[in-house]
Amino acid sequence: MGGSVALALSQQGHRVRGVTRSEDTLHTALQMGAVEGGSLDLSAEVAQAGLVLVAAPTQTSIRLLGSIASLAPPDLILTDACSSKGEVVRAMNALPPGARAVGGHPMAGKEVAGIQGADPALFHGATWVLSKTNSSEGRPSEVCELLARLCGSEVLWVDAEEHDRAVATISHLPLLTAAALVLAAEESGSELAWRLAASGFRDTTRLAAGEPEMGADLALTNSDAVRAAHGLFAEQLGGLVDAARAQDKPRLLALLAQAAARRQAMYRREQ
Amino acid sequence: MGGSVALALSQQGHRVRGVTRSEDTLHTALQMGAVEGGSLDLSAEVAQAGLVLVAAPTQTSIRLLGSIASLAPPDLILTDACSSKGEVVRAMNALPPGARAVGGHPMAGKEVAGIQGADPALFHGATWVLSKTNSSEGRPSEVCELLARLCGSEVLWVDAEEHDRAVATISHLPLLTAAALVLAAEESGSELAWRLAASGFRDTTRLAAGEPEMGADLALTNSDAVRAAHGLFAEQLGGLVDAARAQDKPRLLALLAQAAARRQAMYRREQ
Repeated sequence: MGGSVALALSQQGHRVRGVTRSEDTLHTALQMGAVEGGSLDLSAEVAQAGLVLVAAPTQTSIRLLGSIASLAPPDLILTDACSSKGEVVRAMNALPPGARAVGGHPMAGKEVAGIQGADPALFHGATWVLSKTNSSEGRPSEVCELLARLCGSEVLWVDAEEHDRAVATISHLPLLTAAALVLAAEESGSELAWRLAASGFRDTTRLAAGEPEMGADLALTNSDAVRAAHGLFAEQLGGLVDAARAQDKPRLLALLAQAAARRQAMYRREQ
Repeated sequence: MGGSVALALSQQGHRVRGVTRSEDTLHTALQMGAVEGGSLDLSAEVAQAGLVLVAAPTQTSIRLLGSIASLAPPDLILTDACSSKGEVVRAMNALPPGARAVGGHPMAGKEVAGIQGADPALFHGATWVLSKTNSSEGRPSEVCELLARLCGSEVLWVDAEEHDRAVATISHLPLLTAAALVLAAEESGSELAWRLAASGFRDTTRLAAGEPEMGADLALTNSDAVRAAHGLFAEQLGGLVDAARAQDKPRLLALLAQAAARRQAMYRREQ
């Protein structure tokens, strides 16, 4: 995520530096031209920055925002790329004065984690959610809007809590259902199931292949909304399974037709 | 499905005729070169056939198998392409003597239904399941194995009930979870959710865009195994949601890491 943003900006001539956890990652980012320099030393890098994008799992990001704010030069702008916004924005609102922060969530991603998967086109045509904080008004908002547009994304300002309810439904719960499908297949103990799994299973479970810490953090930092989304989902799935058990074909057909119509309308361009 | 098999065979010089429900479909199949001829009249076509592949939703296929067997010339071989095999094989075992039948399930598909989506390479590299019946031994088995291989697939003989338990886990339940995710998103009433849905939701719900009758029939004809798979799945998903609610990060990390490792091992070549 961080690598993709860095590549997109560097390729347009903007100056980007990186702070990584390993020398290897930094070395690769330098070789790829994603950054012009960087180090493993957060304080040294923050001292010369104008804008810091924190790209890490949610709980790590919240911790890093605190560290960065305590080191921040005046007028430093902070933003993030976390998939949960409520906890992040609350953390941003509690930062010491000085640093100014804007919540951010670029709505794109891939399962290939790390700098090797960096793709400057990852955010082209995507929606980049921005969420207000008590320090975001004015220049911080403008700078983060510019960041999103430079990456080819469309900016959408959304209230953090409203964002979290929506992504619980269309992102966090789907990640957990993907993982649960894989775990249930393993639990079934059927070697044949794995042998027969085809493209349908591959796509339905793609989100389960992502970084475990990313997934854990988003579920942990949005657990109320995830629980509510799970309730709606379990009721719908139960209805489908019950209709099959009752051999109620008209009911099953009606539900599947409703889902197919909604799904097709949504992704019409790709069908 | 039928169109893809017909195209694959016709392109290799084999003689294929089609029986369709509409003139339009037949006309398109002729224009595409998928068939050399055909009609809407099942009895006329069956009279000149050596092998009939029934490619329709499961309950329709079972009905058609009965009709065809009653019209069948001696030595006609029947097979199908249904995603449930238990009910199909039981129906095949109950056919009048004369026609000889083999259960079949090519493990590939796409959401674009109809002859327009026909793709002669659809079954390349796929597993084509065959299931024994009380009339399948000898030439019927050999002919159906040849059919699968001509389509580029690898043949796997599987007991019908064992097949149904496996596909409940990796195909039928995933179709229902995909539909339930779409229905739950609709139920949530959040316009924002649809606006923010990205590639993760698209992939996780792809199976929900398929033909409703195909989905309904496979759930109806495999409802016991689907119910068992749903039980395993609901338990796994509940465990993930509960771990998030309890803020039990080690547990959530362990489960997501287990799922990610299994999923990555399975599709290593595609990552």
